[in-house]
Amino acid sequence: MDEPLQVNSERLKADFDALSEIGSTGDGGVNRPTFSEAHLEARAWFRQLATMEGFEVRVDGAGNVSAVLSVEGAGETLLIGSHLDSVYSGGRFDGALGLLAAFESLRVLRESGQPLAHHIEAIDFTDEEGTLVGLLGSISLTGLLKSEALKSPRGRRQALEEGLTRSGLTEAGLFEARRDPKSLAGFLELHIEQGPRLAKTGTDIGVVTSIVGAHSYQLTFKGHSNHAGTTPMPGRNDAGQGAAAFVLATREIVLADYPDCVCNVGQMNFNPGGFNIIPGRATLSLEFRAPDKKQLKELRNVLLTRAETEAERFGLTLEVKAAGAWNPIGLDEEIQAAFEKSANNLGLSHKRLHSGAGHDTESLARITRSGMIFIPSPNGISHDPREFSEWSDCLNGANVLLNTAYHLARKAPQI
Amino acid sequence: MDEPLQVNSERLKADFDALSEIGSTGDGGVNRPTFSEAHLEARAWFRQLATMEGFEVRVDGAGNVSAVLSVEGAGETLLIGSHLDSVYSGGRFDGALGLLAAFESLRVLRESGQPLAHHIEAIDFTDEEGTLVGLLGSISLTGLLKSEALKSPRGRRQALEEGLTRSGLTEAGLFEARRDPKSLAGFLELHIEQGPRLAKTGTDIGVVTSIVGAHSYQLTFKGHSNHAGTTPMPGRNDAGQGAAAFVLATREIVLADYPDCVCNVGQMNFNPGGFNIIPGRATLSLEFRAPDKKQLKELRNVLLTRAETEAERFGLTLEVKAAGAWNPIGLDEEIQAAFEKSANNLGLSHKRLHSGAGHDTESLARITRSGMIFIPSPNGISHDPREFSEWSDCLNGANVLLNTAYHLARKAPQI
Repeated sequence: MDEPLQVNSERLKADFDALSEIGSTGDGGVNRPTFSEAHLEARAWFRQLATMEGFEVRVDGAGNVSAVLSVEGAGETLLIGSHLDSVYSGGRFDGALGLLAAFESLRVLRESGQPLAHHIEAIDFTDEEGTLVGLLGSISLTGLLKSEALKSPRGRRQALEEGLTRSGLTEAGLFEARRDPKSLAGFLELHIEQGPRLAKTGTDIGVVTSIVGAHSYQLTFKGHSNHAGTTPMPGRNDAGQGAAAFVLATREIVLADYPDCVCNVGQMNFNPGGFNIIPGRATLSLEFRAPDKKQLKELRNVLLTRAETEAERFGLTLEVKAAGAWNPIGLDEEIQAAFEKSANNLGLSHKRLHSGAGHDTESLARITRSGMIFIPSPNGISHDPREFSEWSDCLNGANVLLNTAYHLARKAPQI
Repeated sequence: MDEPLQVNSERLKADFDALSEIGSTGDGGVNRPTFSEAHLEARAWFRQLATMEGFEVRVDGAGNVSAVLSVEGAGETLLIGSHLDSVYSGGRFDGALGLLAAFESLRVLRESGQPLAHHIEAIDFTDEEGTLVGLLGSISLTGLLKSEALKSPRGRRQALEEGLTRSGLTEAGLFEARRDPKSLAGFLELHIEQGPRLAKTGTDIGVVTSIVGAHSYQLTFKGHSNHAGTTPMPGRNDAGQGAAAFVLATREIVLADYPDCVCNVGQMNFNPGGFNIIPGRATLSLEFRAPDKKQLKELRNVLLTRAETEAERFGLTLEVKAAGAWNPIGLDEEIQAAFEKSANNLGLSHKRLHSGAGHDTESLARITRSGMIFIPSPNGISHDPREFSEWSDCLNGANVLLNTAYHLARKAPQI
């Protein structure tokens, strides 16, 4: 057994703390929605860091930013990375840790002087969180982006156009970001679990077997706005009533019949919006996730049918707009084994688990062998400033990532 | 019996059509929330009209605009009027018709050359609809404005401050708008019914006996935002669930136990607002109305208690902010009789009814004898661009207003 490589804790921690300041919410979180000022600042910071440390920097047509460790004579590239964007008022670990651990891996591999068979690239993907489209950078890279997905994205078309312009990107560029699968040696991602399973079982490393599928929709219940004082209660077509009934129903349906699935109504808006006007329109953001295609499709049908039923019950009509669809996907078996071997070499406990969150790994897995590990989120909280992981767990994850990357990229690999 | 006076239909219609263009929504409605550009334009238009026609124009510290028919030797003033502001995307009749009919009454009374005992003032009250505070201009005039009502008004404090500044008004000015009750000879208002009762019974004129009381609140349900994919459904503190359950409950409570009351949740907002974030906060605008103080108080207690219960049920906390309170009030018996006499003289049918909407009349009724009439809203729709009344009904209402104003203001009145 080789002595495992080790990341430099202080160096990685300094990077992490510096990055956490960019778009800081002041209470431990960051607010870096895609193409926001803070997001672009974080990307500029990463480019500068990589350049200062002597790595080649590459930015593709989708805005994905890579630090590249070029290897003479190598043909393929092993990608490792994650993302710098966040949800609105999100946590500082989600995405950021994975990218910085990937970059630290690059530094350690270069310092180690070990002979490598592949180029290695630490890559920051655009819009993983989907404040605009969702997995936009990674899907663009795979060449599987559909122009359909850009027409009415969940973050709204205008915001997408404005964001691309602000970042010096174009829609055509997204399609030009495609890379030939043959040029890739695989993809690895480290991420926080964003749930309580590892912490509850005292496990150091989660090896991801498959990634959830998710659909998102924007639903609008339409009734008639009217005077809220003079319109008799029984004769109203109150859009808010249908929307509220549906919000409650989503939870009840999933709790009762889909224990492996989750569902969320993340946004809601009544129009015209006055105290004394019966809402004529109620618009909500719906997202649901399932571990396999069959359940995903079934749940979609049940939820959309229920929305129709609630609309009818309150004398409303329903408008349904698809806002995103990601299918569930299984991850590479050999890479899962490689992660486990690295964890064993480092003396870390591990378990295999399913990911209830979507990640860039699910894009890459469609074109190259891909794998993903989690570290514990002791409070189970994510997409919130209170998101937290112990630094020792961050280091464990970074070390498993580093050693697995080395294992996959080194010359004459011994499995 | 005197021959009743008659308004000039073409002149009044020309005014009405011109005013309907200001802030037009393009589909028959107007959007003139208090102190918006369109609202200020409408007021400027009215000032210019009154000036051009040779009336004295008076603007008080609350921004109320009056056209004054001064009468030599008169001490008291008979006020007649309504308001030029609208709800967001409201109708073109609500308020506007009442003010223009009042102004037309001034013109006809001047032209008639009849001797008058009181000055007459056609007055446009500020913020009747409450996009900022509610009945702000009329309450200021009565001297009953409480500074408390300005601290966190339902349209938000900042919007109030900005609106006052934009209109050249000050908070102190609101209090200076107070007028001595002894200087007033009464108040009359013409309005559309905003409900279907007159049309359903084929009645020309509704004589209002009392005006509804209304309370408004902003409620915020507070839970914990978290990742919508990885947080197990049973462990969530989803603020949206509590808010949705409350929205449904408000309707059920009023339908079941308060047949004379109404309730509305006119606005709703989930935060942070992402598809993939469990809402940590859900804020809604609640308004409810009752015909008497007892029911109003009881309904308030039942609704706020239920909000607490729904918050607890979903592991949330509740924040309650009062956003406005108007008590129910009975109107002057003599003026009701005077309206009926005018209607009889004009050959119009009439009935007495309660008003489910709040109006400036309820402010004025606290300091001077006040009365109000409705004309039919055949489709019952209001606070919406589809709000509509037949022009013949508008004329009927204007003629009843004119003759009743004459009856109350003329020298040596004969009842």
